[in-house]
Amino acid sequence: MKSILIIGCGLLGSSLLRKIYKKKLAKKIFVYETSKRNIKKIKRLKLPGTLIRKPEDVVSQSELIIFCTPMSEYEKIILRINKNLHSRHIITDIGSSKLKSLKVVNKNLRKGLFWTSSHPIAGSEVSGPENGKQNLFENKWCVLIKGKRSSKIHLKFLKSFWGKMGSRTIEMSPEKHDKIFSITSHLPHLIAYNLVKSAQDFEKKQKYDLLKYSAGGLRDFSRIAASNEIMWRDIFFDNKTNVSKAIDLFIKNLKSFKKDIISKNNKTILKKLAQTKKVRSRIIKLKQDINKPDFGRD
Amino acid sequence: MKSILIIGCGLLGSSLLRKIYKKKLAKKIFVYETSKRNIKKIKRLKLPGTLIRKPEDVVSQSELIIFCTPMSEYEKIILRINKNLHSRHIITDIGSSKLKSLKVVNKNLRKGLFWTSSHPIAGSEVSGPENGKQNLFENKWCVLIKGKRSSKIHLKFLKSFWGKMGSRTIEMSPEKHDKIFSITSHLPHLIAYNLVKSAQDFEKKQKYDLLKYSAGGLRDFSRIAASNEIMWRDIFFDNKTNVSKAIDLFIKNLKSFKKDIISKNNKTILKKLAQTKKVRSRIIKLKQDINKPDFGRD
Repeated sequence: MKSILIIGCGLLGSSLLRKIYKKKLAKKIFVYETSKRNIKKIKRLKLPGTLIRKPEDVVSQSELIIFCTPMSEYEKIILRINKNLHSRHIITDIGSSKLKSLKVVNKNLRKGLFWTSSHPIAGSEVSGPENGKQNLFENKWCVLIKGKRSSKIHLKFLKSFWGKMGSRTIEMSPEKHDKIFSITSHLPHLIAYNLVKSAQDFEKKQKYDLLKYSAGGLRDFSRIAASNEIMWRDIFFDNKTNVSKAIDLFIKNLKSFKKDIISKNNKTILKKLAQTKKVRSRIIKLKQDINKPDFGRD
Repeated sequence: MKSILIIGCGLLGSSLLRKIYKKKLAKKIFVYETSKRNIKKIKRLKLPGTLIRKPEDVVSQSELIIFCTPMSEYEKIILRINKNLHSRHIITDIGSSKLKSLKVVNKNLRKGLFWTSSHPIAGSEVSGPENGKQNLFENKWCVLIKGKRSSKIHLKFLKSFWGKMGSRTIEMSPEKHDKIFSITSHLPHLIAYNLVKSAQDFEKKQKYDLLKYSAGGLRDFSRIAASNEIMWRDIFFDNKTNVSKAIDLFIKNLKSFKKDIISKNNKTILKKLAQTKKVRSRIIKLKQDINKPDFGRD
């Protein structure tokens, strides 16, 4: 490739930057970042690529354009580069929720242009360019979205591109994507935030020094609940219908758990607790987590 | 010490066994285990100590007796060894919930005998003697319970004993213990079980192959939800009043989160998400978790 434009150079953007550079996938990598703090970090880290101030100036010479900003930034940037875009441009993004962001794209992106969305299932509780790493996508899934504005040719190109990033790809409709990830990712994050919030409320009320004893379970949730707040606000808002339904299912099940506990319903509780165990072994078998007790922490 | 009796040789019991042997804390270590599967494993692993069939026979010569069985087993075993016990015996347990189990102890243990309860904040999603390790208690907290049947001298002894196991100790009333751990441990486990259960329900209904995409959050919960079901049933049942209150607080907060998401209450959501972040850094500062992104998994 002659050149790639990365828009937004946080954890994901800088990881792509590192890997693209390492694999020598483009003669030129342009990086557009608006946060002054991040720009300072990128310079200090001497990350590869050319920092640019006006994405509209380099768009026409970039074969691949990757949006790595929070989803709430898409509209503003699309409007800025819209007139310099051409149907030959392969445009993608790495957003975690699809239906709403694709509506925004559809509404704002000029007619005749393509947008073929990606979602690499990779991330961390830390953010910023200093935490990016070139192997972030290694052995991870990357979902490619077949939607109104996607292009078959671009899907084929992106399949190969993400393969070079180390990922396996799968095609999905935005509807299916948003349903699946409302359960496997969005609800777990919300639940983790909510658990930590509840512990904070309890701590304030009881004036106990709780966190000293967090090794018994709470610490695990605190990791996920430390994730980037802008990114997660965008996801919760964009996928609010599915997330809402997931919350309802969760509360229904939790109330039933509570009932079983209060009435000491031995058989039902044991059945529930034993069944969930099987999920862990399936996840390990699918190589979606490390096969070591306690994540190999100790 | 002349001899120690370990009652129940699963993850915790076998970890104590390994450490006591390594530190040469007793001339003789008796091990009482009823599960045939575990006995086979103990023999195959050639664990130290002497497997015994009748705990009542070795009780009188054991200075320290440690209950490491599920809490629902205490009554049966107490009744069996009751008449061979003497007030000089230091009796402790490692159960995760205290008020109810101490009631059982109080009711069944002969008058004049002491029971000084411990709770090492150490564990794992895996169980059984094959998963025990001598450093399980290293740098962990161990809560010692000051209650009706505890003895000052035994508290002092146990403080030193757990110190040798590698733990720091703190004294607490059973009431305070059960409140704190309902939030830092029991609720997180219940929530993890409930999340995995909800994902299973969703999977069945939608016929989606969800778990492939669990790396986005669900996998973390699946680890905790793989914990031993007998142990956790006992904890939920024994601490049901506090767990119930914790569930209510959690549901109240989750409903408020849902409302904020549906109404896109930007300010409130961002405040909540940003606040929970601080908890993670406090937990890391308190050395209650590994200071590496993603638990250092990748």
